[in-house]
Amino acid sequence: MTAETVRSMTGDSLAEDMQTLGRQARSAAQALTISSEAQRNQALREAASALRRNSEDILAANRQDMDQARARGTAKAFLDRLELSEARIETMASGLENIAALPDPLGRTLAAWEQPSGLRIERRSVPLGVIGIIYESRPNVTADAGGLCLKSGNAAILRGGSESHHSSGAILDCLQAGLKAAELPDSALQRPATPDREAVGHLLRLNTYIDLIVPRGGRGLIERVSEESRIPVLAHLEGVNHCYLHTAADPAKSTPLVVNAKMRRTGICGAAETLLVDRQVAQTLLPPLLSELRAAGCELRGDEEVQALDSAVIPADEADWATEYLDAILSVRLVDGLEEALAHIARYGSGHTECIVTEEAEAADTFLARVDAAIVMQNTSTQFADGGEFGMGAEIGIATGKLHARGPVGADQLTSYKYLVRSAGATRP
Amino acid sequence: MTAETVRSMTGDSLAEDMQTLGRQARSAAQALTISSEAQRNQALREAASALRRNSEDILAANRQDMDQARARGTAKAFLDRLELSEARIETMASGLENIAALPDPLGRTLAAWEQPSGLRIERRSVPLGVIGIIYESRPNVTADAGGLCLKSGNAAILRGGSESHHSSGAILDCLQAGLKAAELPDSALQRPATPDREAVGHLLRLNTYIDLIVPRGGRGLIERVSEESRIPVLAHLEGVNHCYLHTAADPAKSTPLVVNAKMRRTGICGAAETLLVDRQVAQTLLPPLLSELRAAGCELRGDEEVQALDSAVIPADEADWATEYLDAILSVRLVDGLEEALAHIARYGSGHTECIVTEEAEAADTFLARVDAAIVMQNTSTQFADGGEFGMGAEIGIATGKLHARGPVGADQLTSYKYLVRSAGATRP
Repeated sequence: MTAETVRSMTGDSLAEDMQTLGRQARSAAQALTISSEAQRNQALREAASALRRNSEDILAANRQDMDQARARGTAKAFLDRLELSEARIETMASGLENIAALPDPLGRTLAAWEQPSGLRIERRSVPLGVIGIIYESRPNVTADAGGLCLKSGNAAILRGGSESHHSSGAILDCLQAGLKAAELPDSALQRPATPDREAVGHLLRLNTYIDLIVPRGGRGLIERVSEESRIPVLAHLEGVNHCYLHTAADPAKSTPLVVNAKMRRTGICGAAETLLVDRQVAQTLLPPLLSELRAAGCELRGDEEVQALDSAVIPADEADWATEYLDAILSVRLVDGLEEALAHIARYGSGHTECIVTEEAEAADTFLARVDAAIVMQNTSTQFADGGEFGMGAEIGIATGKLHARGPVGADQLTSYKYLVRSAGATRP
Repeated sequence: MTAETVRSMTGDSLAEDMQTLGRQARSAAQALTISSEAQRNQALREAASALRRNSEDILAANRQDMDQARARGTAKAFLDRLELSEARIETMASGLENIAALPDPLGRTLAAWEQPSGLRIERRSVPLGVIGIIYESRPNVTADAGGLCLKSGNAAILRGGSESHHSSGAILDCLQAGLKAAELPDSALQRPATPDREAVGHLLRLNTYIDLIVPRGGRGLIERVSEESRIPVLAHLEGVNHCYLHTAADPAKSTPLVVNAKMRRTGICGAAETLLVDRQVAQTLLPPLLSELRAAGCELRGDEEVQALDSAVIPADEADWATEYLDAILSVRLVDGLEEALAHIARYGSGHTECIVTEEAEAADTFLARVDAAIVMQNTSTQFADGGEFGMGAEIGIATGKLHARGPVGADQLTSYKYLVRSAGATRP
């Protein structure tokens, strides 16, 4: 048997395995449609208990992944995301309990009305069906995303990064234990049997069985998924987020707000990456703000005018304006009024979160109306771009597209609806 | 120059033209974002006037299309859809006026709340951006779909069937006259310059400029678009719709309801295609119903039991259960109770509109909850599956997917939303 034949047989058997996963998920989704809220919440709480009960097994599985990753010489940031601890397991467990405590997103009457024809019409929330989640080697996403799918009555196929295969498997075992305890099919939450990277390609073509793909990760992953998928994708793109200090910005608010937006946590998608400052107020606002940022450990890159105001600012080049640093770096540019700020954001923004700092209601209204982003803010730190901070409970991420859901994606956003129509035998004239 | 070179040059220039269309549409969409409700409604009303004023030019353009189509020996049903008349032009014009009279789908506060952190959050409806509409040679869709896109503040690229090129162009001229009269960019509604079929392929790859593709037409068109598109698709699939006569069906309602559901108009996607009858009530309900259907001109195809009840019933084969006849044909099958009806619908239904005829509330609730379709009905003719009948005004069609919008797609469904967040300088702890 040639190597080629072996490879192609492996490919076939993987394709078959993925078909089976899809079929099982579809059938589990049907069971979830008729499950009760109590059952779904019980499954979530039982899964939380199982995570705590099996924490040693989970940590042992994680050590296997960590050893293999270290042996491959993986970068430290990668290892940080991969590593589990008792504390991280507890965060996953309490996360699932928090999801269980959220209001039921299903069976809600979203609207109800009567027509002159005698039709009584109700729009009612229902699950989407089967969701494919594709994410990097962050094993905790298995619990977070799996929990949200279950809460919203969806079956899920969870495909985490290959390097987290053992850890994710141990966590998935706990989720499935929760499902069984609540008498729900454990195929409601599944994953490919092997860490084979080709599984992703197969998953993206299972359009007979999967209703939605949610990729969660860096730009490369999202782009690959959007390009290859035959299934609708709810993309969570990067956040090239701006703070714009308008002429009517309150100096007392500007500095703490921008420092918080940039520096509170630099690695999250809601962090600010570019500061735009109205030329009229630059000389007043910018020097104290830049020195506070630098004191907080932030590298500053700016255009020539900004450099003239502060000689320690490094020159920014064209690429800087389009970069999501996810790091303690801020690009700074002066603009001539609101229109120029809007034009800069339209050109370089990623449609995630944009903020104007101003005390002038009219300028704020214009900014909020005209900036095309999921979240537009006045006098508010962009770091608030988060489902929890919006009061929506847990979230899978911030969707930057405009279809289906935009902004934080929690359990509510993972639902669809149907129309229920009743009458006393109405026929259409 | 070889034929090959000429072809490839044409292809390049078409690709370039489509890029230009996309760029112009994107820029028009930005202008629409800041347009007022009054402007958009004025454009719709002026377009209606232009249609009436230019009806002779439109009819002349339509005669060109009709002559060419006849010369190619096109089928009568196709010609019927292609042909315009004074009455059809008036229907388009008053359709646009009706859309103008609908409530504004934009700038609506969908939800508003305050967080303990001091954030005041509002979810507000906004346009999607640029919509690509792909449809067959029905020139009236140019006005209907264009009008809905404009109402909802979206730019649109309208690509109708090649055979309707002259008619659609004459109608688009009127829409653009309306835009100009309202001081809106006429590139808000555009179409490819030539009837070249390859334009569709290019359109489906313009993901930089187009946010949503709405295909409107038969199965072949929808499947091609779903397969090829690099842009999210809001698909309107066929309606393999069922009426299920439950044991507790009211005989006085059953016959008029099923006759209406099948025969009122057989060519619309809300028409019933299959009748399921509970075995327990078949002998009572079916004979009078079948003879009324036959009297109304309906061909009947059934399983052996149905044939035994009525010797004029033709045998149905497996393909019948999955067929959208769009014609005066009904397939009929007996089932053993609600579960078997649900299983049949899960297997053969297309997720469009499904109806149970019963006086028993529990059976109805089970049916409405468990059938996975955009519209589920009790004691109501499936022919009511229509945006107008739902009180939503005009519609592009009935979406059968679960993402973004499900069921009738009108102006409201062609919107997205954004979050507006205000605070007094809140920073995240």
